Amino acid sequence: MLSDHKKGETYSIYLLIKAAEKRTTSKGSPYIRLTLTDRSGEIQANLWDASDQDVEKYIAGRVAYLTVLQDEYQSKAQLKIQEIRLANDSEPGDPSLYEISSPISKKDLQSQVSDLLFQITNPTWNRIVRNVLNKYADKYYDYPAAEKLHHAYRGGLAFHSLSIAKLAIKVAELYPQINLSLLLSGALLHDIGKTVELSGPVGTEYTNEGQLLGHIVIGDEILVESAEELGFDLHSEDMLLLRHLIISHHNKLEFGSPIPPRELEAYVLSKLDDLDAHIQMITAALNKTERGHFSEKIFGADNQPYYRSNADLPQNHD
Amino acid sequence: MLSDHKKGETYSIYLLIKAAEKRTTSKGSPYIRLTLTDRSGEIQANLWDASDQDVEKYIAGRVAYLTVLQDEYQSKAQLKIQEIRLANDSEPGDPSLYEISSPISKKDLQSQVSDLLFQITNPTWNRIVRNVLNKYADKYYDYPAAEKLHHAYRGGLAFHSLSIAKLAIKVAELYPQINLSLLLSGALLHDIGKTVELSGPVGTEYTNEGQLLGHIVIGDEILVESAEELGFDLHSEDMLLLRHLIISHHNKLEFGSPIPPRELEAYVLSKLDDLDAHIQMITAALNKTERGHFSEKIFGADNQPYYRSNADLPQNHD
Amino acid sequence: MLSDHKKGETYSIYLLIKAAEKRTTSKGSPYIRLTLTDRSGEIQANLWDASDQDVEKYIAGRVAYLTVLQDEYQSKAQLKIQEIRLANDSEPGDPSLYEISSPISKKDLQSQVSDLLFQITNPTWNRIVRNVLNKYADKYYDYPAAEKLHHAYRGGLAFHSLSIAKLAIKVAELYPQINLSLLLSGALLHDIGKTVELSGPVGTEYTNEGQLLGHIVIGDEILVESAEELGFDLHSEDMLLLRHLIISHHNKLEFGSPIPPRELEAYVLSKLDDLDAHIQMITAALNKTERGHFSEKIFGADNQPYYRSNADLPQNHD
Amino acid sequence: MLSDHKKGETYSIYLLIKAAEKRTTSKGSPYIRLTLTDRSGEIQANLWDASDQDVEKYIAGRVAYLTVLQDEYQSKAQLKIQEIRLANDSEPGDPSLYEISSPISKKDLQSQVSDLLFQITNPTWNRIVRNVLNKYADKYYDYPAAEKLHHAYRGGLAFHSLSIAKLAIKVAELYPQINLSLLLSGALLHDIGKTVELSGPVGTEYTNEGQLLGHIVIGDEILVESAEELGFDLHSEDMLLLRHLIISHHNKLEFGSPIPPRELEAYVLSKLDDLDAHIQMITAALNKTERGHFSEKIFGADNQPYYRSNADLPQNHD
Amino acid sequence: MLSDHKKGETYSIYLLIKAAEKRTTSKGSPYIRLTLTDRSGEIQANLWDASDQDVEKYIAGRVAYLTVLQDEYQSKAQLKIQEIRLANDSEPGDPSLYEISSPISKKDLQSQVSDLLFQITNPTWNRIVRNVLNKYADKYYDYPAAEKLHHAYRGGLAFHSLSIAKLAIKVAELYPQINLSLLLSGALLHDIGKTVELSGPVGTEYTNEGQLLGHIVIGDEILVESAEELGFDLHSEDMLLLRHLIISHHNKLEFGSPIPPRELEAYVLSKLDDLDAHIQMITAALNKTERGHFSEKIFGADNQPYYRSNADLPQNHD
Amino acid sequence: MLSDHKKGETYSIYLLIKAAEKRTTSKGSPYIRLTLTDRSGEIQANLWDASDQDVEKYIAGRVAYLTVLQDEYQSKAQLKIQEIRLANDSEPGDPSLYEISSPISKKDLQSQVSDLLFQITNPTWNRIVRNVLNKYADKYYDYPAAEKLHHAYRGGLAFHSLSIAKLAIKVAELYPQINLSLLLSGALLHDIGKTVELSGPVGTEYTNEGQLLGHIVIGDEILVESAEELGFDLHSEDMLLLRHLIISHHNKLEFGSPIPPRELEAYVLSKLDDLDAHIQMITAALNKTERGHFSEKIFGADNQPYYRSNADLPQNHD
Repeated sequence: MLSDHKKGETYSIYLLIKAAEKRTTSKGSPYIRLTLTDRSGEIQANLWDASDQDVEKYIAGRVAYLTVLQDEYQSKAQLKIQEIRLANDSEPGDPSLYEISSPISKKDLQSQVSDLLFQITNPTWNRIVRNVLNKYADKYYDYPAAEKLHHAYRGGLAFHSLSIAKLAIKVAELYPQINLSLLLSGALLHDIGKTVELSGPVGTEYTNEGQLLGHIVIGDEILVESAEELGFDLHSEDMLLLRHLIISHHNKLEFGSPIPPRELEAYVLSKLDDLDAHIQMITAALNKTERGHFSEKIFGADNQPYYRSNADLPQNHD
Repeated sequence: MLSDHKKGETYSIYLLIKAAEKRTTSKGSPYIRLTLTDRSGEIQANLWDASDQDVEKYIAGRVAYLTVLQDEYQSKAQLKIQEIRLANDSEPGDPSLYEISSPISKKDLQSQVSDLLFQITNPTWNRIVRNVLNKYADKYYDYPAAEKLHHAYRGGLAFHSLSIAKLAIKVAELYPQINLSLLLSGALLHDIGKTVELSGPVGTEYTNEGQLLGHIVIGDEILVESAEELGFDLHSEDMLLLRHLIISHHNKLEFGSPIPPRELEAYVLSKLDDLDAHIQMITAALNKTERGHFSEKIFGADNQPYYRSNADLPQNHD
Repeated sequence: MLSDHKKGETYSIYLLIKAAEKRTTSKGSPYIRLTLTDRSGEIQANLWDASDQDVEKYIAGRVAYLTVLQDEYQSKAQLKIQEIRLANDSEPGDPSLYEISSPISKKDLQSQVSDLLFQITNPTWNRIVRNVLNKYADKYYDYPAAEKLHHAYRGGLAFHSLSIAKLAIKVAELYPQINLSLLLSGALLHDIGKTVELSGPVGTEYTNEGQLLGHIVIGDEILVESAEELGFDLHSEDMLLLRHLIISHHNKLEFGSPIPPRELEAYVLSKLDDLDAHIQMITAALNKTERGHFSEKIFGADNQPYYRSNADLPQNHD
Repeated sequence: MLSDHKKGETYSIYLLIKAAEKRTTSKGSPYIRLTLTDRSGEIQANLWDASDQDVEKYIAGRVAYLTVLQDEYQSKAQLKIQEIRLANDSEPGDPSLYEISSPISKKDLQSQVSDLLFQITNPTWNRIVRNVLNKYADKYYDYPAAEKLHHAYRGGLAFHSLSIAKLAIKVAELYPQINLSLLLSGALLHDIGKTVELSGPVGTEYTNEGQLLGHIVIGDEILVESAEELGFDLHSEDMLLLRHLIISHHNKLEFGSPIPPRELEAYVLSKLDDLDAHIQMITAALNKTERGHFSEKIFGADNQPYYRSNADLPQNHD
Repeated sequence: MLSDHKKGETYSIYLLIKAAEKRTTSKGSPYIRLTLTDRSGEIQANLWDASDQDVEKYIAGRVAYLTVLQDEYQSKAQLKIQEIRLANDSEPGDPSLYEISSPISKKDLQSQVSDLLFQITNPTWNRIVRNVLNKYADKYYDYPAAEKLHHAYRGGLAFHSLSIAKLAIKVAELYPQINLSLLLSGALLHDIGKTVELSGPVGTEYTNEGQLLGHIVIGDEILVESAEELGFDLHSEDMLLLRHLIISHHNKLEFGSPIPPRELEAYVLSKLDDLDAHIQMITAALNKTERGHFSEKIFGADNQPYYRSNADLPQNHD
Repeated sequence: MLSDHKKGETYSIYLLIKAAEKRTTSKGSPYIRLTLTDRSGEIQANLWDASDQDVEKYIAGRVAYLTVLQDEYQSKAQLKIQEIRLANDSEPGDPSLYEISSPISKKDLQSQVSDLLFQITNPTWNRIVRNVLNKYADKYYDYPAAEKLHHAYRGGLAFHSLSIAKLAIKVAELYPQINLSLLLSGALLHDIGKTVELSGPVGTEYTNEGQLLGHIVIGDEILVESAEELGFDLHSEDMLLLRHLIISHHNKLEFGSPIPPRELEAYVLSKLDDLDAHIQMITAALNKTERGHFSEKIFGADNQPYYRSNADLPQNHD
């Protein structure tokens, strides 16, 4: 695994080509900029003096076997390729073996979400959530939660939504004034617009719809259409509240919510969304950091470096 | 007319009671706080030692005949009531004679808007605009454009939209790269959500829908539903562009647009909206200011006072 | 109870005088501005034409029996006093019967905190927390968590700290990478400096120390002194981490943390602190709001009004 | 023309050398960084292994004939030079054939400005504008409107001023309360200080005066001196108003206006200035963008990318 | 003296009427709002049931003899008038006996400024400063430095300028790289525009010129005109530097400088201006504060309250 | 000296290696990035094709003799190494000959600080300052005042503290209301926490303590411990005031002070700290700038370029 190696080491490894871009050096000789990945991380490498055959051979989606020297360029790790060939038939060549993806399998994501639906006891919200998740199931369990920053991997959207839903249940245990049906519905659907805003789980980019409307407006559109289909009154309190949770979940206008939270569950949803995203980003950065040192500055966490302590964690619970 | 009188004057006048609220002095005696209006403006007055009959008689919607001393309280004009009675049958008692409203009559607003529609040559936008304006006609020509600040009078919504449309035509004459069909469609529909966000032309308040969704999201919902009705593809470029104009017309995220303008006509619409609103606010403040002096600070115009010059305007055009 | 009455009602009631200030009307006659309270809320009333005896009699800490008309002044409820006398010996005159205080009794607060200490398995943190809570026990279970805004009542400091600790346990169940010992220690001690920053549970004001140092610096001072007493190395990782949680718990420099969170548990603590405070403020505002309406703007919650829905809460859990 | 070619193409072309800077590679070999231009745009190229003769030959102001491969470096287009020689006498070697400049010829700019002066009916403003434009004519019709960002080409200053003046006439047709004489005077003179702030039409830089005083203060100085010459009272209302328009045209203090607009025409001028500059920047960016795609982020337009639609423009007017 | 009395005291005192405004109570009876002053401070009082004779008698500029009860209204001191009459001929009736003014007499201000001029050894700056101070002498030694906030008294402008000049000399003793001639010139002239921006030493208001141009632009105009008179080249380095010091002395664009400091002495001037203004504001607030307590929040000092310590000052120097 | 040479010159020079980092080119060949310094400045150079011996030989702390061509890379000066060898025994090889350090010798810093202590006449503050300076003497006279930006050299901490103390004495001469004992104590101790926040005078980095606590909290800890040692009451006014000066010396919360200045001397200290740091930064930038030109943008001075005038300084004082 990539994460087992350090700067200065020479080693051989199977890696998935995630992206391959043909480039030319300033002096005019062609090379390929490869983005290589396995489940432990992602790294760049340049294949110098690339022939036309190389360009055809080393393309996104293929698995290659490389001998490399691990180096650093502008304080990011980089590989110097010493040898490279494609994996042959007897070698582990299935791309899904190398892709970073949700820590929970697609099947488990689906069954855990299904189980949660029973806790949405309000019939309007229950039917809306089921209707939307059915229509968007393919993308919901496949898309990342963001282009980069956090949960940027296959299944990240469902995994992140589910994590917030679990937090919602925990928090509602302490604050009985919270309407759990509403909060769970919001947790599961808040980012549904990302299935249209983003292009897909691989090579994720913003779509034209995404750039012109944004996932908040698209999410509201999905609720409006679902209500139409189910014959619900768009201006009933139930619909107003659920739509409000979706559109206010970025908490502040300057973060893209056209209306700030003005309802208890909307406030709580916006904060649990933020909390889960930050814990994920900080944990990811700490996993790449030596004990007793600070991580790189984490762009999404106020651009602060985070400290990884020397202490082994006690067993929190048995 | 109210605007003909000054602080210190005693005079008699017919005024419409716009609001009447029963209150008690700190010492416990009852009085009525009256908001009185004619077409030239609005003013407060207290009817002291009000009897139960007074409370029944002087209510919103009635026209009264008053003898008053014009005074000032906390630097706002106020009337001291010396005599008051309701207008009798032979006197001008029709409330519409006293209401501030659009400088253009409803009929003219309607015909001018109708004429403009012919300049929307793109069939998708033309049909959407016609469909929406038909469905919301009652409110569109009746509602104010805002709760206070600017165009806060009956018909203000249509009048403001029409003004922007006229500006759009002028500006497109100078910049042929502007798609006038799109810009006109945006100009006419950008505030359509206010027909749901606000409660109506009189005693205007935010509705629950307004506070939980805002007129930008409601406006987008109206477009989504209209496209459904007309069988248009929501993700066609035509629909994306028109929806983008609506949702980005506040220009910046911190002003409530979930997405900033990312299209030429969207940028221009947001700026013409701003320009018309400011000219209206500044003009309204200057109309209450003596020549050679500064107006009150105008809240909506960066809280600046504006200077009214001594110069008579030359005839701009013949 | 105060909360049982509405504007316009006349009724008799026992209330605690929380504050009594002698004033003079603009015309020179003396009156007393009374702040009156019972467990359901707080209200203002003026006692007009107050004699010298009245001034001596109606002072903070006494319980009075009043006949009043409930009115409104500048959109705040206010009482017009029709009759007033002090409660006599046979009447309920114990101030503690009228004071707003923590929803959990002092005894329960203490025993719940004691139980939590066993989950702090790191011996350094365990001993520091015990040492500090012992030394500051009197104030810790008695002080409010703030001068106003949230948990501004007797016992509020311990109640708020305990709520965050309970949230910490819930959240750590979902994220095993969290060091619960550290997070619990921070939850219990983060506001310990308020025992010096604030003057006490009643008539709470900032002390000179509070205004010149602030509770964050005072909290750090308390940890420094406790470490001295216990012979712990101030620059050991354990001490650095716990001190970091205290000083970074306002999350951003502009909110008064001299250093932002740079450690996972510090980040989580700052967010749970915020979450509990907001839920408390929003809930308090909604409790005073009619169903289907919006609350007053909540200063501490981005100055937004919050909507109270019509829906009865389902039973969240059995 | 440069704009007819794409990445990956090899082609021959005449280009003007706008700048030529001698550099050394990290390994010590000399090369020339060329900035090349024709009327359709501007591009960078490096001439590797440059001899001393090359350095003397390929200098700013010369026209060269090149055979090039169009490539990209850090997502900007760049040329790889395959062959280069100077244009010979029989080839198109006049630099003015290659320079980007105002879409309107200098002569037309002058005659259109002259025509506009008749619409400035106030004699003070008319004489001031004529006096200033006479004195600064050479630079006014030659300078760019900015160092980069917008109208950064020969004649840009006059072209931008004229565009605003045309907008002013259009807007005043809709709002008769606007003093067109004043607004036109401000439109024509608002950036007059740039004739001193900037160094000239080619290789435009800020002068020392420009950096120490800025074009707003310099513009006011020019008005003060013109008023002296013409014997006008600096503190007459006419002079105050015109000076106010110049100094407030950046609209906000943080954009460099020492006083914000406090006069109707000053507000309108600041907004039309902004509108014209943005339309020019957005249009320039879209001209380099494929239909159905987004442009690069436009620094001067809130750093947003702009969408170029697929639609052909209808004929706006005949 | 006013400052010798406290809330609750009844006493007799001579005071100057600084302002007298006729008003009407909400019930319609006339009264006069008096602003009364002596050298120790300023206070408000209402003269109830004022007759027409009272209105003629008690006007700004007259000295009155009053018997009063000192009270408080909205936490500001206020006098309740028990008796009032004008001072008679044998009593101290000269207004200048009661006016707050510069701690240094006008004559001393003038001679200290004169002495400083010899330290401006650069002939250009020396002549400019002399020329400007001669022309504006009447106002320079008479005007306040601000409408309110700091040095808001007769002679405040010269006193504040002189204080900065004295600071400049001290600071230049420690940093020999500072050009003292330039810094002193800037110190003496930086606020010269206030002689036009403000209306005068009494009842100070902003003039129309002040509101439309601001003292920074007016100050630059004064330098431009002085250079014309003296035949100096406006674009010589000497003039550029001095003008830069004037226009940049508010330090940041958002505080009204069209250009920020870009020259060492300009930076230092902006900071010494700020330092002197703050020390004056803080000292003024502390003088009204009891030892061991905090002052009111000081608007101009980041709205913070300041602590007045119990300690007697040691003798700083002999 | 480095500062005697210009771009384009070839010369030989002794320089201290301040840092040496092994790197690899994009093509894989090893080189050493050297940071070289003498008392006049610091510069980068790459030693290409470095052998393993080179890597062992050219390390931080050694003095080398180089023949170099001075060049520029990304508008920063850089050396191209033509020859390099270590200084031999007969050559000037003592690193202290090459290090940039305080303009005042360590001995003089110590004696000047000692002299100042006599002006701290308050016994509490005098003893605290002596106690702390004794304990931290080694680091106080050796550490820089910052990692970069200003006074980033050996002895910078004491030199900067002393400069502020000298400013304090000058300013207190003009404002007798200033408590000089307090202000001097604050000046000398305000940055004492940097002795723990930073790693030392060479290769200065933030320590873990520094990143988790910051020098403001560490400085307060040092005062708390010193008070303990000396038996002073931490909550006496004397201690509160001195602690307040330390914690508020960054002036605003967003700059890292948990409490803003709320005491006259605290305000003055924060401003003198700022003034000295800026004068040092601006002077350092101007020393590298030609007369009549602007410096690079100075990051710590609002990112502005500063102008170096042509004028020779007059003798400020004799």
